[in-house]
Amino acid sequence: MKRGTPASGRPRALVFDVFGTVVDWRGSIAREARRIGRAHGVKADWGAFADAWRAGYRPAMERVRRGELPWQSIDALHRRILQSLLGRSGLRIAPREIDELNRAWHRLTPWPDTVRGLQRLKRRYVIGTLSNGNMALLIDLAKSAGLPWDCILSAELFRHYKPDPEVYLGAAALLDLQPREVMLVAAHKDDLAAARRCGFRTAFVQRPLEHGKVATADVSPDRRCTVNAADFVDLARQLGA
Amino acid sequence: MKRGTPASGRPRALVFDVFGTVVDWRGSIAREARRIGRAHGVKADWGAFADAWRAGYRPAMERVRRGELPWQSIDALHRRILQSLLGRSGLRIAPREIDELNRAWHRLTPWPDTVRGLQRLKRRYVIGTLSNGNMALLIDLAKSAGLPWDCILSAELFRHYKPDPEVYLGAAALLDLQPREVMLVAAHKDDLAAARRCGFRTAFVQRPLEHGKVATADVSPDRRCTVNAADFVDLARQLGA
Repeated sequence: MKRGTPASGRPRALVFDVFGTVVDWRGSIAREARRIGRAHGVKADWGAFADAWRAGYRPAMERVRRGELPWQSIDALHRRILQSLLGRSGLRIAPREIDELNRAWHRLTPWPDTVRGLQRLKRRYVIGTLSNGNMALLIDLAKSAGLPWDCILSAELFRHYKPDPEVYLGAAALLDLQPREVMLVAAHKDDLAAARRCGFRTAFVQRPLEHGKVATADVSPDRRCTVNAADFVDLARQLGA
Repeated sequence: MKRGTPASGRPRALVFDVFGTVVDWRGSIAREARRIGRAHGVKADWGAFADAWRAGYRPAMERVRRGELPWQSIDALHRRILQSLLGRSGLRIAPREIDELNRAWHRLTPWPDTVRGLQRLKRRYVIGTLSNGNMALLIDLAKSAGLPWDCILSAELFRHYKPDPEVYLGAAALLDLQPREVMLVAAHKDDLAAARRCGFRTAFVQRPLEHGKVATADVSPDRRCTVNAADFVDLARQLGA
């Protein structure tokens, strides 16, 4: 059933990391938290609030990866972290508002080049997510941001979080492609390195504002990657789409 | 994380059976087989060829469901059936052509109302596949037919074929919805009955030409369904989309 890799040496499918690579989680979360803060008369550094929420995600996920916590979705992990953040902040909100704020991750704003770049790439390649976000989150996000995915693939399908190899290899298997026929697109070098260990091609995309205007994101070119791109439109150009 | 069902009592997501409900498998397969037959100077009733290919699918799948065959994708089952069909037909073609013909299932033509209906439904609901077709097949089909799915869900994700309850319940879980918040749309009453046993809402859509112009498809209304629709545009109208 396998088809050969095209002569050009180009991939057949591109799968994308989402948080930070496709969407601006920090700006979006800070905005939603600020709105709720205002409604309750609470002032805070909402950028730092977003950072703290995001910072809790990796240790929580690591606990799942090590088997200390049973499998749970990113929605559930986000909720758990948010609960403890709210306890430490001055913000006292009702469970319904906590749910609503937790769902801010379903409504993150894409980077300015995202939709245009994806539309171009979609003409030539199968494009999909490959995110630790759960399916429902990724579906909502695609709808709210107008992301034209051909398919939504999530760590949830494999009950393993990136960078576990099960996620990359599982995605290639569902696409009925060899790992070398799939390219991971990400702004994070550790994710790309893990994909490469599974045989994927890799594209590093610079997202200088992922951590805000003050903090610095690592945007230096990654020579181990097949492609280094300034944004998704540049990626489309380099991949002939 | 669950949200309540909307006051209207309408579903939040619609998942669609694909072969026969969304696309005209018989007409498409007959057309591709006829083209290959012509190229090899073989005449046959290609509608009957398509029927025989499709007829092999259910027993093959049943063998997987009973555990007599290990899990395998519809692509693999189709290939196995095609091989035996070709043996009995006058058509002698090379393995590469067999692969190419097998992939005709990745290029099936939608019914005339399909794309317009889905575009309307997508504005108001999450829409996705829920098919026994494998992921790669469904992704290719969506691309070639321009089907605007929000997500591709396949029996392959659950390693169970419809009508096993694991497929319907697994889909609802990935959508993070209660079964009653999901509606299965299908032209086949057995599929709809199985979904209903899992708590899904159901929409029966008439596809009078599924088995060709001569054979009769069951298009009588199904009173057990939430909705009975003439086609996808009628379904959109009835669901306020």
